[in-house]
Amino acid sequence: MSIFKSTSEKNVKGKVKKVFNDIKKTRKINKIPNFWKSLAHNPDNLERTWNNLKQIMKEGTLDSVTKELIYVAVSITNNCDYCIRSHTAAAKKKGATDEMIKEMIDVVGFANQNNKFVAGYQVEIDKIYK
Amino acid sequence: MSIFKSTSEKNVKGKVKKVFNDIKKTRKINKIPNFWKSLAHNPDNLERTWNNLKQIMKEGTLDSVTKELIYVAVSITNNCDYCIRSHTAAAKKKGATDEMIKEMIDVVGFANQNNKFVAGYQVEIDKIYK
Amino acid sequence: MSIFKSTSEKNVKGKVKKVFNDIKKTRKINKIPNFWKSLAHNPDNLERTWNNLKQIMKEGTLDSVTKELIYVAVSITNNCDYCIRSHTAAAKKKGATDEMIKEMIDVVGFANQNNKFVAGYQVEIDKIYK
Amino acid sequence: MSIFKSTSEKNVKGKVKKVFNDIKKTRKINKIPNFWKSLAHNPDNLERTWNNLKQIMKEGTLDSVTKELIYVAVSITNNCDYCIRSHTAAAKKKGATDEMIKEMIDVVGFANQNNKFVAGYQVEIDKIYK
Amino acid sequence: MSIFKSTSEKNVKGKVKKVFNDIKKTRKINKIPNFWKSLAHNPDNLERTWNNLKQIMKEGTLDSVTKELIYVAVSITNNCDYCIRSHTAAAKKKGATDEMIKEMIDVVGFANQNNKFVAGYQVEIDKIYK
Amino acid sequence: MSIFKSTSEKNVKGKVKKVFNDIKKTRKINKIPNFWKSLAHNPDNLERTWNNLKQIMKEGTLDSVTKELIYVAVSITNNCDYCIRSHTAAAKKKGATDEMIKEMIDVVGFANQNNKFVAGYQVEIDKIYK
Repeated sequence: MSIFKSTSEKNVKGKVKKVFNDIKKTRKINKIPNFWKSLAHNPDNLERTWNNLKQIMKEGTLDSVTKELIYVAVSITNNCDYCIRSHTAAAKKKGATDEMIKEMIDVVGFANQNNKFVAGYQVEIDKIYK
Repeated sequence: MSIFKSTSEKNVKGKVKKVFNDIKKTRKINKIPNFWKSLAHNPDNLERTWNNLKQIMKEGTLDSVTKELIYVAVSITNNCDYCIRSHTAAAKKKGATDEMIKEMIDVVGFANQNNKFVAGYQVEIDKIYK
Repeated sequence: MSIFKSTSEKNVKGKVKKVFNDIKKTRKINKIPNFWKSLAHNPDNLERTWNNLKQIMKEGTLDSVTKELIYVAVSITNNCDYCIRSHTAAAKKKGATDEMIKEMIDVVGFANQNNKFVAGYQVEIDKIYK
Repeated sequence: MSIFKSTSEKNVKGKVKKVFNDIKKTRKINKIPNFWKSLAHNPDNLERTWNNLKQIMKEGTLDSVTKELIYVAVSITNNCDYCIRSHTAAAKKKGATDEMIKEMIDVVGFANQNNKFVAGYQVEIDKIYK
Repeated sequence: MSIFKSTSEKNVKGKVKKVFNDIKKTRKINKIPNFWKSLAHNPDNLERTWNNLKQIMKEGTLDSVTKELIYVAVSITNNCDYCIRSHTAAAKKKGATDEMIKEMIDVVGFANQNNKFVAGYQVEIDKIYK
Repeated sequence: MSIFKSTSEKNVKGKVKKVFNDIKKTRKINKIPNFWKSLAHNPDNLERTWNNLKQIMKEGTLDSVTKELIYVAVSITNNCDYCIRSHTAAAKKKGATDEMIKEMIDVVGFANQNNKFVAGYQVEIDKIYK
């Protein structure tokens, strides 16, 4: 169950149709993923999020594989299954190897552990970082 | 206040002394950061965490700058100030530019937002990701 | 699988029966939702949580639709599927429109993003807020 | 310590200057809050976030006080001190009474507790919500 | 800065005075901790939370030291500094040794790490746990 | 779907085989749980995590039932279904009664609630805890 009724790709129009067409063209896909179909319930949010994605996730000083790995690292920390699966797939599509993904998971586990050691011991910030 | 009394670097011995010396030598630093001094209250944990760090954060298929950025991305998501500051500094020391850090923060914010859109709309996993 | 065996509505007695009857009467429902059946494993917790709910979620300075929306906003942030679905339904039942729910999801995504920007940039609290 | 050097309001130009002026004018304030000064390190992010804020937080089907309360509820759940203080102040400025804020905090605590009961008992989603 | 003005112990009356007296008597302390003074802004919440505490944290099948350690483990995972400090102190007062606290922190770090491995690898629930 | 292809117990060799045999022997089980099969994609991580588990979760100053309860308390707070189910089962196997588990869940819910009250009211740390 989604919170709202499923959006049919066929019947969309206006802003949603425009964004859906851009997603299909940019991604070279024929089927709109459920994430974008859900956002379509709020056309302004759909448009805003898609435009933001194009600006934020594009090749920059960080290459787009690294950006996808960072995206997945956040999604793992937040326990978002949909996000982990779709963005791990995106990372692979853009060139991430299995080895890279495994190393990323290792770092994520280690950082989560150490974040809690810092809290548990109430570690004070070293002067050089203040 | 830390949960336990502060560890003085001068008086340590045994396992703790060995690890402290290795940290100083490996990092080329003269002063042990508070994180490691806190872990020293539990020498087995100190040794285990330091050994794990050397194995996990080393140059691999992912270069060590990317690993630090992933570490910071997790720490931001978990809101761990100490970890954000010390590992942003570590990332810079290893070669991360300000531009890379800003792009990483952008991705972290975007992923956190989208993770919640997925939850809010209860987006179902697309068949191709199952 | 639940952690404990499912509670049958028919065989309950004492404190649990009393609370179940009150839930049915107050909510005008015939079937106890799984949340309350799970809590029934711990009758004191069941009674306490139900009494707290009646006190906290009632019409106050905030109307009960607003309270449900806040409840859902927290549940989205915590990624609790059961809570998101049942309380979105509750919000609708009490009068929340689809438009209100979409706007709430927008705010939740935005706040989650900005919370992380604050952490990533380690933004200092402005003097006027101290 | 911020991650980057503090941005001086006086020396900004271009996109940042334009956004800063809009913030001052819209909010009727003379001093840019630290949040926006931090985002200014990344002018694209500054502009995007400010534009998104104007679109998302504006009076809609939900009034802007309710939106601020939802924003604070998320920030409490994420433990973001800066966000809690600045948006509680914003909520008050827009008309939220102390009573409303206290009731919101009550709901936030209650929802966080129940979210964990659901996880602890691994409560299954009722058929009517599927 | 607190969100509301500080509560003075001297001027309280009615429900708040009654609860404050009970806290002092039960805990054998002369000064009300800031947590309870903050809750006093909402007398119903103060009374409810204090009564719940007495019911939940009392010696049961789990002894009260174990309960305090579980409380701290949650607070570490949620990164709540106030809660970590005050309940670590409470655990010690009730008999927890430094060794017990260190072992608890170890488990907390390990669980947090493994929770993320499960998410990262999207580990399926074994049939025997379904 | 897991992120990587399922590991077959039959075909493993080297480091993975050694760890799998140790898991079966130590746990007196015939079938490797999915958690360990997933970690096997990264043999170093598998070995490290298994060795850490034996060191961290063993009988210490805290008995191993208490350690499992703390592990579950963290997993509930993080909303990790796999971890909650497998470690609640582990706790029971080691001697935890249903009553103990219910009391642990009670404490987890209460701590999560109070953690948020502290954030919502921005409670200042009492001098005695500084």
